[in-house]
Amino acid sequence: MGDRSVYRSVGQKEDTDGIARRVAQITVSAIKQMPVLASKVEGCISLGQGIPSFETPSFIREAVIEALRSDHAIGKYSLQPGLSELRIEIARHLQQTKGIRIDPEKEIFVSCGAMEALAAATATIVERGDEVLIPSPTYSSHIEQILFAEGKPVFVPLIEDQEWKLDLEGFKRAITPKSKAIFLCNPMNPTGAVFSQEELETLAQIALEHNLFVINDEAYDFLVYDNLPYFSLTSIPDLKKNLITTYSFSKMFCMTGWRVGYMYASARIVDQVLKVHDAFAICAPRVSQYAALAALKATNGKDGEGDRSIQQLVARLASRREIACQRLNNLLHVFSYIKPRGAYYVFPKIMIKEMGSMDVSLDLLYEAKVITIPGSGFGPSGEGHIRLSFGATEEEINKAFDRIDIWAKNYR
Amino acid sequence: MGDRSVYRSVGQKEDTDGIARRVAQITVSAIKQMPVLASKVEGCISLGQGIPSFETPSFIREAVIEALRSDHAIGKYSLQPGLSELRIEIARHLQQTKGIRIDPEKEIFVSCGAMEALAAATATIVERGDEVLIPSPTYSSHIEQILFAEGKPVFVPLIEDQEWKLDLEGFKRAITPKSKAIFLCNPMNPTGAVFSQEELETLAQIALEHNLFVINDEAYDFLVYDNLPYFSLTSIPDLKKNLITTYSFSKMFCMTGWRVGYMYASARIVDQVLKVHDAFAICAPRVSQYAALAALKATNGKDGEGDRSIQQLVARLASRREIACQRLNNLLHVFSYIKPRGAYYVFPKIMIKEMGSMDVSLDLLYEAKVITIPGSGFGPSGEGHIRLSFGATEEEINKAFDRIDIWAKNYR
Repeated sequence: MGDRSVYRSVGQKEDTDGIARRVAQITVSAIKQMPVLASKVEGCISLGQGIPSFETPSFIREAVIEALRSDHAIGKYSLQPGLSELRIEIARHLQQTKGIRIDPEKEIFVSCGAMEALAAATATIVERGDEVLIPSPTYSSHIEQILFAEGKPVFVPLIEDQEWKLDLEGFKRAITPKSKAIFLCNPMNPTGAVFSQEELETLAQIALEHNLFVINDEAYDFLVYDNLPYFSLTSIPDLKKNLITTYSFSKMFCMTGWRVGYMYASARIVDQVLKVHDAFAICAPRVSQYAALAALKATNGKDGEGDRSIQQLVARLASRREIACQRLNNLLHVFSYIKPRGAYYVFPKIMIKEMGSMDVSLDLLYEAKVITIPGSGFGPSGEGHIRLSFGATEEEINKAFDRIDIWAKNYR
Repeated sequence: MGDRSVYRSVGQKEDTDGIARRVAQITVSAIKQMPVLASKVEGCISLGQGIPSFETPSFIREAVIEALRSDHAIGKYSLQPGLSELRIEIARHLQQTKGIRIDPEKEIFVSCGAMEALAAATATIVERGDEVLIPSPTYSSHIEQILFAEGKPVFVPLIEDQEWKLDLEGFKRAITPKSKAIFLCNPMNPTGAVFSQEELETLAQIALEHNLFVINDEAYDFLVYDNLPYFSLTSIPDLKKNLITTYSFSKMFCMTGWRVGYMYASARIVDQVLKVHDAFAICAPRVSQYAALAALKATNGKDGEGDRSIQQLVARLASRREIACQRLNNLLHVFSYIKPRGAYYVFPKIMIKEMGSMDVSLDLLYEAKVITIPGSGFGPSGEGHIRLSFGATEEEINKAFDRIDIWAKNYR
């Protein structure tokens, strides 16, 4: 059965003597704990972490190889906000995909992954004691970033039985004089929900009425299924002064390990967030900026390799989503789920009485040798669910579900 | 004469409405402003930023090229604290160079440059209102990191006429019940001072007596001239529980742009700082971790390429130091200086009456077309000085001083 006490003890034995409150109060997220536990269990299959099976496309790697041989500056700092050439391509990309015009010199900076931009932006906006409205369930790192800024996450539950819709009335009710920002992720991790234009326009209106900032993570913007239209908050001109949006190369070009992403906001906000970027990173890794530049150049042109690699990625993940959902259809006595419309996660509700998300994830780990993430890591409404990623290969997904099928017979 | 008002206005026109105090209070450092101003002046030579002229050694670039072709995981996240293999080589390196035994699993993490580790460590240790004792002049980013953590930098002036020695009595006098940490850089940026074993042992004793943390930046530990012995605070066993030390691959292997460094501390501290690392970076760029691994493997072995590249680097910088000092000897009516014993900076005192460091740096920029950094950016005792880097090529250094010679005639 494995040593479950190990898991429960994480976060409890912590010695936080002399540690600042902003850090002491953060508990290590379940997303990070599960792989550590799993590393002690042999022969696991992972539906856990959000790392798809794909390699960084070879045209990107070859461009970096070329630069490593020919570019004398590749080992040196770039400008603090990133290579000018890269920022120009980013502006072009956003114009092509979102129809927005951006000043690449002032409204963008290149970060060490979208995570650095999100953490820096949150620390820039959120003062100690400020309240930040955030849907629940949500990506655990966003919660950590709010806590790090000594803000208070105010969770507004999503409406699960309406495909994880935003509870707009709930947002309105949650606003107090201490509200400072709304923190959003669209498409959503862990639910796979994609918010509609109508929902987002109403949310923007709420933000503007109460002068709230909106921190907006669009890392999965390219990854929407069923030809569903994708609406970006960046398309609302009035919101621009309050909006901070981050994008990532990690998912779109299978570049998680390169640590490169970017932030788009008004020049005034970028100026302030750059102070944090300077203190934490100086600049994004130059070698990764070259990789990002190669990726975007191949995407911004006509029928480039970049577009083909993205289309192929989306098609393959769409078929993996089908497999995961078909397999879940045979498990409805243990997991009730809503078909995800974006990203590569599904967040089924646990139908087994008296089993919490941690119980189920540990059971699956030790009895079925399948890694999943307990929903409790994703905010209060996450409890009672587990997150499954369908980024793994089709073979792995099927093998994992074969094991889950056997495990689920215990609960007939 | 150029538009000096541009410079003076930086930081004044800032619109910090709605910006959290931790960020609003940081002013953009002179180190970052000068290159921006200089980019508008044609034909400048830089003695400004700390980027030596050298390329990342080809054996490191070739190892990365090999990995880009053969390693399927190169584009993926590493473990959050860094690749296990790299941490093992780091532990080996510290054992060889410092004689300390380290648990590579628990006492090290790999960061996005030493800067990320320093910022994360400071944010982990320093609570709002805590006082942090820091020598002055000091590296401006350290001041920013303390401010970001909402701590109060308490500057303890170095003793300039004793080769920028630590004022140990001054440290004792500066301690209050709010003192939380001492922040040190050794060898020192911007003075080029190297602290003695005696000074450091006394400082450690002070820290232990008052239970202060010591945040210790040893990025230049390999770069000490005149066969001066280098003493590391990591050699004091009693201090280990309070000590956080960071190292960088940036300077030792000419890898500034790769953004990879690491932190060494007790397991308890590493555990806490990793929470910040997780929220800001997830992991250091994997491609850069491969570069760092290749660098260390070639250094930890017998007579490897890594050692040769370091020896060559130190020899070349030593000869550049001689050139800079010889040229400064002809300028003693404008600049009085102390010969640096480590790093690649010299921090001369301005001997021209009624000219502040900003005046001199702007004069040099607009009249001599030489980029320098005004001392005011390095804490209160920095005023009245400028920082010159001798990382540029010998030709550039000589050309810059030819221009400074002509400029200095104005002050005969």
